[in-house]
Amino acid sequence: MATHTDRHPSASHYDIVIVGAGPVGLMLSTCLARWGYKIKHIDNRAEPTPTGRADGIQPRSLDLLRNMGLKSAFMAHKPARVYEVAFWDPPKAGKGIVRTGTWPSCPSFIDARYPFTTLLHQGHIERVFIADLEKNGVRIQRPWTIRGFTSNEKADPEYPVTVNLEHVDGTAKETVKAKYLFGGEGARSFIREQLGIGIKHKDPIAYVWGVMDGVVKTDFPDIKMKCNIHSEHGSMMVIPRENNMVRLYIQIASSTDPDFHPRKTATAEEVQASAKRILQPYSIEWERVEWYSVYPIGQGISDKYTLDHRVFLGGDACHTHSPKAGQGMNTAFLDALNLAWKIHAVEAGFARRSLLETYEPERKDVAETLLAFDNKYAKLFSQRPPSGNEVAAASANTHTENEFVKTFKESCEFTSGYGVFYKANALNWSPSHPAQSHLILPPETSHTKLVPGRLFINADVTRVVDANVVHLEQEIPLNGAFRLFIFAGQPSLATSRAALRDLAFHLSKPQSFYSAYTRRDIHSVSHHERHNPHSHFFTLCTIFAARRPDIEIARDVPFPLAAYRDHVYADDRWDRRAPPGAKACAHAKMGLDEERGGVVVVRPDGYVGFVVALEEGSGTVDALNAYFGAFCSKRLGETRAVL
Amino acid sequence: MATHTDRHPSASHYDIVIVGAGPVGLMLSTCLARWGYKIKHIDNRAEPTPTGRADGIQPRSLDLLRNMGLKSAFMAHKPARVYEVAFWDPPKAGKGIVRTGTWPSCPSFIDARYPFTTLLHQGHIERVFIADLEKNGVRIQRPWTIRGFTSNEKADPEYPVTVNLEHVDGTAKETVKAKYLFGGEGARSFIREQLGIGIKHKDPIAYVWGVMDGVVKTDFPDIKMKCNIHSEHGSMMVIPRENNMVRLYIQIASSTDPDFHPRKTATAEEVQASAKRILQPYSIEWERVEWYSVYPIGQGISDKYTLDHRVFLGGDACHTHSPKAGQGMNTAFLDALNLAWKIHAVEAGFARRSLLETYEPERKDVAETLLAFDNKYAKLFSQRPPSGNEVAAASANTHTENEFVKTFKESCEFTSGYGVFYKANALNWSPSHPAQSHLILPPETSHTKLVPGRLFINADVTRVVDANVVHLEQEIPLNGAFRLFIFAGQPSLATSRAALRDLAFHLSKPQSFYSAYTRRDIHSVSHHERHNPHSHFFTLCTIFAARRPDIEIARDVPFPLAAYRDHVYADDRWDRRAPPGAKACAHAKMGLDEERGGVVVVRPDGYVGFVVALEEGSGTVDALNAYFGAFCSKRLGETRAVL
Repeated sequence: MATHTDRHPSASHYDIVIVGAGPVGLMLSTCLARWGYKIKHIDNRAEPTPTGRADGIQPRSLDLLRNMGLKSAFMAHKPARVYEVAFWDPPKAGKGIVRTGTWPSCPSFIDARYPFTTLLHQGHIERVFIADLEKNGVRIQRPWTIRGFTSNEKADPEYPVTVNLEHVDGTAKETVKAKYLFGGEGARSFIREQLGIGIKHKDPIAYVWGVMDGVVKTDFPDIKMKCNIHSEHGSMMVIPRENNMVRLYIQIASSTDPDFHPRKTATAEEVQASAKRILQPYSIEWERVEWYSVYPIGQGISDKYTLDHRVFLGGDACHTHSPKAGQGMNTAFLDALNLAWKIHAVEAGFARRSLLETYEPERKDVAETLLAFDNKYAKLFSQRPPSGNEVAAASANTHTENEFVKTFKESCEFTSGYGVFYKANALNWSPSHPAQSHLILPPETSHTKLVPGRLFINADVTRVVDANVVHLEQEIPLNGAFRLFIFAGQPSLATSRAALRDLAFHLSKPQSFYSAYTRRDIHSVSHHERHNPHSHFFTLCTIFAARRPDIEIARDVPFPLAAYRDHVYADDRWDRRAPPGAKACAHAKMGLDEERGGVVVVRPDGYVGFVVALEEGSGTVDALNAYFGAFCSKRLGETRAVL
Repeated sequence: MATHTDRHPSASHYDIVIVGAGPVGLMLSTCLARWGYKIKHIDNRAEPTPTGRADGIQPRSLDLLRNMGLKSAFMAHKPARVYEVAFWDPPKAGKGIVRTGTWPSCPSFIDARYPFTTLLHQGHIERVFIADLEKNGVRIQRPWTIRGFTSNEKADPEYPVTVNLEHVDGTAKETVKAKYLFGGEGARSFIREQLGIGIKHKDPIAYVWGVMDGVVKTDFPDIKMKCNIHSEHGSMMVIPRENNMVRLYIQIASSTDPDFHPRKTATAEEVQASAKRILQPYSIEWERVEWYSVYPIGQGISDKYTLDHRVFLGGDACHTHSPKAGQGMNTAFLDALNLAWKIHAVEAGFARRSLLETYEPERKDVAETLLAFDNKYAKLFSQRPPSGNEVAAASANTHTENEFVKTFKESCEFTSGYGVFYKANALNWSPSHPAQSHLILPPETSHTKLVPGRLFINADVTRVVDANVVHLEQEIPLNGAFRLFIFAGQPSLATSRAALRDLAFHLSKPQSFYSAYTRRDIHSVSHHERHNPHSHFFTLCTIFAARRPDIEIARDVPFPLAAYRDHVYADDRWDRRAPPGAKACAHAKMGLDEERGGVVVVRPDGYVGFVVALEEGSGTVDALNAYFGAFCSKRLGETRAVL
C-alpha cells in the first residue's frame, strides 16, 4: 500500500500516537506501520523488556503471527511448547504430591494448526515486532512518557488530538498533533486516569503472586510440562520456557487469608523455600534465577475503552486478571488488531467513522468473558482434578457431557483463542442486520458451519498456479483487506459456472462494493501483485470443488477473479476432520454445498462477517452490497446508481 | 563435543584442508566444524555464488537440513516449492503446445515430510552454511587456490598431507599440514587431475544447455510449475524460483545434431528468442535477467574418489550429469555427509581407519545409479508423456504396474532422495556380515520394513517429558553419533520389561559397544545435556507402545536409557500410513512387533545399519556388540573381556 506519511501538514502531525511498547502497542503499531500510517510510538522504558513478564502465545495467536509473517522469527528462539497440563495434588494417604491427571492444552476437538501453547519471554516477542517496525521506518522513542493530552474534534476535525510528550528525565519535551491517541501503558494507564475512566473489579478476591524464571535441577518428572500443583504447603504453577528455563508461579497471599494485605511480599529465597516444600518429595535446586517478581493481581475491567473514538485504550490498561490461563498477551494482540484494521478502514476512506464504535463493545465483551472464565477456570481446578474419562469424553466430542466436561471444553476453546467471538453488529451479520436476502446463509437455519463473529474455519487446499498444498485461512496475509472466499462449487456444472460468471459480472459494475473501491493507481499496479491488484480493501479467493488438474484458470475463472491468479484453489485435499464421504473437504468443513458453493466474507482480522449463497443473477452481489453498505463510506448497488 | 583444535602441533597443522566452498565443501566443513575439527577451507572465488547455479533441494535433503537446524534459515528466503511437474507437447493437430499431463514431484506413496522440491539459488544456500561455519570459528579463505599437494603416510602418519595454497593473484602463499585433503572444486577438479584419476563418460551423448534466471511476464499458465516442454521449436524446462523469478533451461545443442560442437554457444537474446518460439501460442517477455549461462554437459563419473583414504574427492569433481532431475546439490550434500561422519568416527577414536574405505563404494554406487537414472529419466520423458491413469496407478501403489509406472515410481523415489540406498558392508548388515545371531531381523525373512542401507522410516511419537508431538526421525540432531532406537514394546508386559531391563544391564557392562566409548568427561557433563550424556558416539531413544500418560520414566526406563530423559517417547500417535488396526503406529510402520519391539541402529547419517529383536538375556546386546565390532576400534563383548 502507498505510504500515507507524505500527507500531513507538518512534521509534528501524526496519524496516531501510541503510548507503551508492550504487546498491545507493538501489535497496533506494526499493523498501522505496514499499512502506511505515520506513527509516534513512545515507551517510558529505556529498553525492551529484558527478562520476565508475559510469555504465553496461544494456538490461535500463533495463526495470527504466522498470518503476519512473524511466526518463524518467534520460533527461531526455540520456545517451549505446552501440549498438556498436568495436575498434582496431595495423595489420598500420606504426604507429598502425586499426579492426579493430565489434559491436553488444545484437545483434538479444536481444529488448530498448532495445538500447543508457545512459551517465550516477552522481550523476544517485543524485539520481533520492533525489528518489523524498523523495516517500515518506525522507531520507538525511549525513554519518553506522556504528560498530557487534549482531544477536540470541533477545534480540529482532522487532527483533534494534541499530545504532550516528555523524556522521562524531563530534559526534552515535544507537542504533537494526531488523529488518534492509543494508551497501551498497562494496568496503571495514565491516559485512562486522565480520561477519568474507572475500573470495575469483578471478583472481590485478590491475590499476591510470586513469579520466578530460572534454570533448575530437579527430579520432578513434569518439569517440562505445564503443571498445576496443589499441596498442603501451598499452590504453584510450573511453566516450561525456552533455554532449559522454567517459570514458577507461587501464590503468596489471597484476600481470603485472615491476614491478607495486597502489599504482602516475599523474597526470592522465601519463594524458593516455598517451592521446595510444595514439590516434596521431589527435590529442586536453582542453577540460575533470571527474573523474580512479586505482584498483586485483581480482576478488573475498564468501564470504557474510549470516550470519543479518538483516544483509545487496550491491553492491560483495560483488563487485568490472573496469569493462570496465559491470556494477557493474546488478548492484548486482539485488542490491537481489532482497532488497527478499523482505523485503517476509516482513514483509508473505506468505512464510515462509526465503524470505530464497534471496537469497545467487541473487545470489552471478550474481556468480560475472559474475566468470567478466569474465575470459572480457577474454580474448575480447585474443586477437583479431572478424571481421565472426562477428559477423553471431552476430547472425543461425545454426547456424554457432564458440567465438568462442558466447562472443560469451553475452557479449552477459550484458552486456545478459538473460542473468542464477536456478537452481532454491522460487521457480524445476524437477522437484525440491514442486509436482508433469501440468499444469506445463517448458521441457525442453513448447513453452514461458518458463524458471523467467529473465526473462519481452517482448510487445506491446492493452489492451482503452482500445485502447492496450502492452508487456505493463511493465504491472505494480514493486509487490512476484507477476504472474500468464493467457494465456487463444481466448475463442470452449468449452474455453478453461471453463478460464478454472474458474480464476476455484478462485481464489475461500478457501484458494487468491490468496484466502488478500486485502487486509484490501478493502471500502474505490477502484474506480480498477488493480493491487491484491484482494491486495497479486498482480496478475492476462488475455491473450486474439483481436482487441480481439472481447473484451467483461463477457462474457469472470470475477470476480476482471474486477476487474483495466485488465489485460485482446488478443494481436493483429504481432511481428517471433514464429514465422512465429503469429496471437497474445504467446502464440506465450511458446511457449504459441494456442488454450488457459497461466498464467505471474512473480516481483515480473520473473523467471519457474512455468508451468502452463490446463485445465478445479481442476488449474491446484491446481498454483498447490502452487507458492506451497512458500514461502507459509499452508496453501493445498482438501484442507487440509477437514481 | 569438546573442541579438537588445541591438539595440533602447530598453527599450520589442520585436521583437514577443504578446497571449494560449493555445496559439497560447505556441508563437509559445517559438519566437521560442529564436531570440533580444525579446518582450512579455501575457495578461489572472492565471494559466494552471487547468482545462478544449482538451486534444487529435494525432499530428503530438506529432512537433512532440518536435522542440522538449518532448514528455517533456507525457508526464510521463501523459496519456490515444486509439488508437480507438468508436461507440454505439440498438439495432435495444429501448432503450438498443449499440456499433456502432470505428475506429482513426490507422490503420496513416498512417506515424505516435505513432499516437494525447494528451489533457492545456490548463493543463499552457501550463505546459510557460511553463517553456521562462522559460529564455529571457521572462515572461508578467499580467493585462494591450491597449487599442489603431497600425501605420504609413511613420512608423517599423523599429518600425511602437505598442501600448498596461494592467493589467486599470487601475492601470498601458505604451506599447511593436514590429516586429510578434500577436493570439492567441481567438474574441473585440480586435485582429481593431480591424482591422475580419470573420468568415465557413461553416455556418449553430450549436450549444450542455456540457462537463464529472470523475472518474466507471460500468459503461460504453468509458469509457477516445473515444466518439461517439447515443441517443434525445441525443448525447454521451466523451474519456478524465489522472488517471482523463473529459471529456463533450453537445450542449445546435442551431440546427436549433425553439426554438434561442444563449444557451441548462444547469446541471451538468442535463447530468449528460442524460448518465445517454444512457448507459442503463449507470450513471454523479460522484465529482468538475473543470470545467464551456457554450458556443455556430459555424463561423467570419476574412476576413484580417493587413492589413499587421505585425499578425497566429492560432488561435481566425481560426477557430472544433466540438470534435469535437479540432483547435483543433493548428491553433493550426501557425499560430504557420508565422508564427514566417517572421518569423525575414525579421528575421534571410535572406528577403525578401514571405515573410510566405505566412502568410495557407497557414494560411487549412488553416482552410478544417478547417471543411469539420468539417462532413463530423459528417455522416459522423451518417449511419451505419462497418462493420468498411469500416474494414478503409481501413486495408489497398486499392483497394476507396467514398465512405465515402475520406472516412474523408481524415478520419484530416486529424485526425492528417499530412494538412495547403500549396499551391504560392515555398516549395512546383510547375511554375510560378521554379526550373526538368531535375533537379527533381516528384511527378507522378518516382518521388519527397516532395510539396512536404507533410510530410517518417518514416524510421529509423543515425547514423554513434555508431551510434545515430534518427528521421531528428527529427534536426534546430526551430531555424528549412532542413533539407537529402542522400540520397547509394551511396558505393561513382563517379558518386554525384562527384555528392556536386560538390554540396559548388558549395555552397562564395561565391554559393551556402549560403555566402551563412555565420555572421558562423564563426571562433568551438564544435566541439561540431552543427546550425549554418556557417549559422544551414541544417542539412545526409547519408544514404548503405550499412551504417554501410562509411561513413567522413573518406573519404566532403566539406566542408562533413563539418562536420555528427553528421548523417551510414547508411540501413541495416529498415522495415516500405518497398517490398518495398528495401535502403536511407529512400531507398526517399522514392521516391529507392537508388544515386543526391537532395536534399530541408525547410522549418524540417518541410514539403517542393523535391526535386532529385543529379548530377555544378553542376546540383543551380544548381537549389537558383534555389529559394532565389525568396524569399532575396540574389542567388544563379554567373551573377549574374559580372555
